[in-house]
Amino acid sequence: MQLTLNSPLDMHLHLRQGDMLKTVAPLSSKSFAGALIMPNTLPPITTKEQVITYKEEILNATKDDKFKPFMTLFFKNNYSYEFLKDIKDEILSIKLYPDGATTNSDGGVASFDIESLRETLEAMSELEIPLNIHGETTGFVMDREKEFIPIYEQLATVFPKLKIIMEHITTKDAVEALDKHPNLYATITLHHLFITLDDVAGGMLKPHLFCKPIAKRPQDREALLNIALNAHPKVMFGSDSAPHPKEKKEAPGCAAGVFTAPIALPLLAHLFEKYNKLENLQKFVSDNAQNIYNLNIKNKKILLEQKEFKVPNSYNSIVPFMGGEKINWRIIDA
Amino acid sequence: MQLTLNSPLDMHLHLRQGDMLKTVAPLSSKSFAGALIMPNTLPPITTKEQVITYKEEILNATKDDKFKPFMTLFFKNNYSYEFLKDIKDEILSIKLYPDGATTNSDGGVASFDIESLRETLEAMSELEIPLNIHGETTGFVMDREKEFIPIYEQLATVFPKLKIIMEHITTKDAVEALDKHPNLYATITLHHLFITLDDVAGGMLKPHLFCKPIAKRPQDREALLNIALNAHPKVMFGSDSAPHPKEKKEAPGCAAGVFTAPIALPLLAHLFEKYNKLENLQKFVSDNAQNIYNLNIKNKKILLEQKEFKVPNSYNSIVPFMGGEKINWRIIDA
Repeated sequence: MQLTLNSPLDMHLHLRQGDMLKTVAPLSSKSFAGALIMPNTLPPITTKEQVITYKEEILNATKDDKFKPFMTLFFKNNYSYEFLKDIKDEILSIKLYPDGATTNSDGGVASFDIESLRETLEAMSELEIPLNIHGETTGFVMDREKEFIPIYEQLATVFPKLKIIMEHITTKDAVEALDKHPNLYATITLHHLFITLDDVAGGMLKPHLFCKPIAKRPQDREALLNIALNAHPKVMFGSDSAPHPKEKKEAPGCAAGVFTAPIALPLLAHLFEKYNKLENLQKFVSDNAQNIYNLNIKNKKILLEQKEFKVPNSYNSIVPFMGGEKINWRIIDA
Repeated sequence: MQLTLNSPLDMHLHLRQGDMLKTVAPLSSKSFAGALIMPNTLPPITTKEQVITYKEEILNATKDDKFKPFMTLFFKNNYSYEFLKDIKDEILSIKLYPDGATTNSDGGVASFDIESLRETLEAMSELEIPLNIHGETTGFVMDREKEFIPIYEQLATVFPKLKIIMEHITTKDAVEALDKHPNLYATITLHHLFITLDDVAGGMLKPHLFCKPIAKRPQDREALLNIALNAHPKVMFGSDSAPHPKEKKEAPGCAAGVFTAPIALPLLAHLFEKYNKLENLQKFVSDNAQNIYNLNIKNKKILLEQKEFKVPNSYNSIVPFMGGEKINWRIIDA
């Protein structure tokens, strides 16, 4: 069996910097026609100059003019209308991190007091710049996303013209919030469609499956699977592929992130085929995102075939999701 | 400030075998007058000969005739009355593991069908041999203990003369079950009085805090603290100190277990003093256990003082709880 995907997009991707960028960027461009690039670099991407420089570094690393990096800014509540108007053509959206929520999120938003965010969010609404949010509170780790839902809902209500994307949703609660507000959207990762907390910590502890938000309960995974497999029009694939060197994962303090970029499409094909939903994969990995972000990317076809493929144990020093395991779809090189 | 503890006991301890035993046994005998030794060795302790041999190995390792290893058997539902009568004087209790629930628990109980357990549990009741249980189902990792409570309650009801110790309880649910049945007792570990899942996986992932049962929610920890600090008479200290070499903890599949034996008493003193409950520590670490198990151990005094102590980063290859951190109580060498 073969499958052609038209311009698949990864709408939540960490490409990092330096040597790590050079390792992982070509692994994304091999599979995808474009990706939304997260701005939580060191330092974070907060200026037009940084956006342009980072984009050039990415293009140099992929050496693939058919791969489009959609750039984002690291949200700050002091971005003015003028600043945003000037930078608008260089970015696709702006990513909001609560302060300290995940890797390199220091300096993110410390308070969700609406008035402190109003000027920037109204400017974004007017300029039609979508807002990506890492929606977690600082509460108990299993409750952080659920506790954040009222904040999503308040923002969606107060700024009705702002497109708000709930990034990497992991709970039934977030799925239920999705349809309550016309301007709420969501990305879902690969790994949250496959694993629950049982896979991370139910047997041996698996640092390579540790991520933020942490994988939740079986019923949460079921809710995510349901909207992904049915290609709910407000839901897009965003891998949140987040590489760390092996020595930072197998350590006394293991960094959060699962590296999925190189095997995302084969595993999605496996999953959608397993549930007899292969006809919906094109929407989940491209069409929905193009509609939500008003994109028109049609320049790349990715051909997959149903054939055994052994996932490498590592890509340089990075251990991928399902490293060393056999999966039953693979990408056919162009 | 100084504190003398009379014959403190650790009523749930893993001493392992071979070199590991030689490393950890003296660290327990330095702090405790005795300990209940878990039987999940390789192979598990299931015969009188094994009990005697393992006890000798432990005594050789501690070289401390004031340390009493209370031996246990690995529960099997084919132990007959005659077998148990013959072995009774060599053991203090029998430990039941659900099959596969934790380290070296293969061959444990696969079904809690009462009839399949009746003969052995009735013999234990008659011979007054207490039953220690690792009470977890195979359900979702955060629910396993809660789901096991009905099994505890059924066993307590069907075998009213059997003393049943709910080992290393971690939930408010288990605390609530404790007073519902006169023959239900519990041990509580050091680490479950200190940590929640947030400490394990809320920031960076901490393999050295990964254990089974996994640490739960803040309100669960509060419930445990409440009965420990008040020295509830049906509750005893049992460290569940479970050493693994560093390379098995900082690995792609990290083994479950927290090594607490050498710093258990100083940290308990710290905790009980913090809550103004120091007068209850003697009961929690010795008197309650002596009442529950009908012991009469009075041969060892442990003197502690309030003075800064830096926990070693490791004991040979074993990283202890709070390794490298400063704590404010220490044991004064005899």
